[in-house]
Amino acid sequence: MPNEIPSPYTSLEHTFAGIGKLKEVQAIAHWDEACMMPSGGGAGRGEALATLTSLIHAQSTHPSIGEEINKAEAQNDLSTWQVANLREMKRTWIEATAVPADLIHAQALATSVCEQTWRKARSANDWPAVAGLLGEVVNLSRQHAQALGSAMDLAPYDALLETYESDLRTSYVTPLFEDLKAYLPTLLDKVLGVQSAPLPLTGPFPTTDQSLLCSDAMQLLGFDFDRGRFDVSHHPFCGGVPDDTRITTRYENNSFLESFMAICHETGHALYQQGLPVDWRNQPVGYALGAAIHESQSLLMELQVCRSRPFVDHIAPDMRARFGRSETDPAWQSENLYRHATLVERGYIRVDADEVTYPLHVILRYEIEVQLINGTLSVEDIPEAWNDAMQRYLGLTTLGNFADGCMQDVHWFAGLFGYFPTYTLGALGAAQWFATALDQEPGINGGIAAGDIKPLLGWLRTNIHGKGRLMSMQPLMESVTGATLDASFLKRHLERRYLGER
Amino acid sequence: MPNEIPSPYTSLEHTFAGIGKLKEVQAIAHWDEACMMPSGGGAGRGEALATLTSLIHAQSTHPSIGEEINKAEAQNDLSTWQVANLREMKRTWIEATAVPADLIHAQALATSVCEQTWRKARSANDWPAVAGLLGEVVNLSRQHAQALGSAMDLAPYDALLETYESDLRTSYVTPLFEDLKAYLPTLLDKVLGVQSAPLPLTGPFPTTDQSLLCSDAMQLLGFDFDRGRFDVSHHPFCGGVPDDTRITTRYENNSFLESFMAICHETGHALYQQGLPVDWRNQPVGYALGAAIHESQSLLMELQVCRSRPFVDHIAPDMRARFGRSETDPAWQSENLYRHATLVERGYIRVDADEVTYPLHVILRYEIEVQLINGTLSVEDIPEAWNDAMQRYLGLTTLGNFADGCMQDVHWFAGLFGYFPTYTLGALGAAQWFATALDQEPGINGGIAAGDIKPLLGWLRTNIHGKGRLMSMQPLMESVTGATLDASFLKRHLERRYLGER
Repeated sequence: MPNEIPSPYTSLEHTFAGIGKLKEVQAIAHWDEACMMPSGGGAGRGEALATLTSLIHAQSTHPSIGEEINKAEAQNDLSTWQVANLREMKRTWIEATAVPADLIHAQALATSVCEQTWRKARSANDWPAVAGLLGEVVNLSRQHAQALGSAMDLAPYDALLETYESDLRTSYVTPLFEDLKAYLPTLLDKVLGVQSAPLPLTGPFPTTDQSLLCSDAMQLLGFDFDRGRFDVSHHPFCGGVPDDTRITTRYENNSFLESFMAICHETGHALYQQGLPVDWRNQPVGYALGAAIHESQSLLMELQVCRSRPFVDHIAPDMRARFGRSETDPAWQSENLYRHATLVERGYIRVDADEVTYPLHVILRYEIEVQLINGTLSVEDIPEAWNDAMQRYLGLTTLGNFADGCMQDVHWFAGLFGYFPTYTLGALGAAQWFATALDQEPGINGGIAAGDIKPLLGWLRTNIHGKGRLMSMQPLMESVTGATLDASFLKRHLERRYLGER
Repeated sequence: MPNEIPSPYTSLEHTFAGIGKLKEVQAIAHWDEACMMPSGGGAGRGEALATLTSLIHAQSTHPSIGEEINKAEAQNDLSTWQVANLREMKRTWIEATAVPADLIHAQALATSVCEQTWRKARSANDWPAVAGLLGEVVNLSRQHAQALGSAMDLAPYDALLETYESDLRTSYVTPLFEDLKAYLPTLLDKVLGVQSAPLPLTGPFPTTDQSLLCSDAMQLLGFDFDRGRFDVSHHPFCGGVPDDTRITTRYENNSFLESFMAICHETGHALYQQGLPVDWRNQPVGYALGAAIHESQSLLMELQVCRSRPFVDHIAPDMRARFGRSETDPAWQSENLYRHATLVERGYIRVDADEVTYPLHVILRYEIEVQLINGTLSVEDIPEAWNDAMQRYLGLTTLGNFADGCMQDVHWFAGLFGYFPTYTLGALGAAQWFATALDQEPGINGGIAAGDIKPLLGWLRTNIHGKGRLMSMQPLMESVTGATLDASFLKRHLERRYLGER
């Protein structure tokens, strides 16, 4: 039997599988760098990963891919999944080839210097030391956004959004955020008026006990330990690959709830990754959707499940047992633990924020970065714009306090623009998925209260995880929940949890 | 200033650096597979590593490399190191291109089936179950050796030796082994006649204590923990890269000396790797020499240093402290610990053998595999040849006992021919290096007794580690010790340790 010549589509599958496998090696090497590598290995690892990255980039932008995509689009023998795979290949290819290599190189150099300078300048509260470098990063990011935009036929900032989540547009995000901006400050006042201060949870909390508690939670939430690991790193993250998913946290000796909730959050990311469609490993359609949907999965686990009263009630005895605390101690009763898990406070720092105030931190950044990319705000005016918004949204001033203001996050200094909104879109998505799941699958709430995640996880596997990139964000949302992303679900959730249950 | 066109040599350095960096990623992914990967990640990792390996192979065999080597050989502006680097590039390239891809593929398939079958057949002592498959592996290995031999202008078995250590030839190895074969059985009788049985060391030995003791030894021996790690795996090994060298061991609950000595051994490999020349990272001349010299470094640490009386005397208090044993217990006094470290026994199993009997296990295998590759012995006659040699060398019979005879090692079933002799050549080298070092650097023995490895490590760094592949094995031996590899050093060492010191 003679060898058949593969169709253009089949040939593309082969090419992308090869690239995907190299990305798997890259993912493990990145995880190793964060979790295992001794300091002396850093320079060599940086070079080794840069070589692998260039190689992946060269393979991903090879002109033959563009030609094969054109030919494959003329094929009329493709299944629904194959059509979606081809669409994702094209998206990937356009994005990979849109920006000139010398601009990418200039960005790598500028962000590297800017980020390193920022680390020192932040602790010294020294905005002028980094403002000029940030100006250059913004300048290059605008060029990047313009190049992407002209390849994608999108406005520059929309092109950046598109790289983080297909379908995201300012025309869609801005009204959602306007709505939340008008709603949340009033809600915040009400919540602060009714909530009671929790009794303190006094440490120390030995690392080994915290680690065991985190493993318990991962087990409860359905993490597959045969296809993943759990380790310590400087910042919590979810890495690895679908069949070897690796999450991390970090510990402090005098508190445990942050670390615990970080693991609940990362487990949400991990469950998504472990649940991706087995038949489409290393194909673009088999990957997870973008940052907003990924965050909707982590926040569904963290905010909707793990900070809920039924889950806290279920895990409270285990928390007491792990730390040797007594049920007769009021601080360790589930009522008080739940108060800690749902404590709302006005604060300066986004990463420390609760679910009521978090969106306001994000909206503030979104509004500034849209203007930076559109050229309607200059870098030197960031501190004033920041202070102004903080006063309006949270009633706090950051005048002269750059470290807790516009210098608190690495994103801009590292050249990340368009990423911030995905955090809040994820929170909106989490509320919308969870409300829909509760409607469609009556066993979910009882399951959580009894330590059985299967009803919820089964629903997520079927409706979200197992679909990979078959549909992009909005069609998926619509097909599962009956509506595109909508703020009403989050509002209802917050009102029930913070105004209704007490 | 216009860009200069790089010389052929410079262009080769660039190519090999790129390949070297990919090999670094590969090394870390291999380590991860052995030490960190959950079982479910195996299939995907296998595919990912196969993709990376093919890519490295494709880059290493690119015809342009051969052309550049020819041109570079005409350059007369190269330094001594550059000339050596070019020589190693050529060696690497000839080896990489000598064997047809379809033969390599057939070998991969045949050895995979044979090795898997061997794992089961060995526990069942079922030689006939695997003999046929081994026949096919031998057949393909002969073709491989012939292809290599014609590219290298060497006899087939010599070509295999050359791939493990440049300069190794049967014309050189056979007389050395004939000498040892005549000498060791008589020595063994004498040693068994004079040695006293040690008092037993009774466990349990908790893993955490064993692990701390191993770290102590690594520290004593000069392992650089800023550029390396120490973990647990199924079999002890040394992996990673020069600036991130990773060694492993495994533990048993009721004994600790095997695991401890395994770490001393792997630390010897690690010190070599960590000491390779910094200026030649990722260039062929910057790599370690072959398996025999690598083993000479591990065995120098294990046999010459760590099983010596001064080292045992120095580490004994730490061993007692780690396991909570008393100095007044005769079993835990250094005299008895030293007896354990130097216990000689006739046995069936190579990996359990002591330094007196180990070479006989190797010589037996060498004699058989030379004949297998030359076609003068057939696979079906292996058990008889094995039994015959065991009787002559060690006075033991393996008639009908395949599991403890010719089925005990994975090597042949995995297609490794030409590797066995490097173990004993390493032991010979270790004795020769160490005797020379003691002559040239008077502080070494006092240093070991006082827990100061610096005099020895400094000598190794200067004379061996830091030279990379500047010279191949025999010229290096000769330039440092005044002689090519010579059995007299090992003989003198064994006589002193086993007949003189008691």
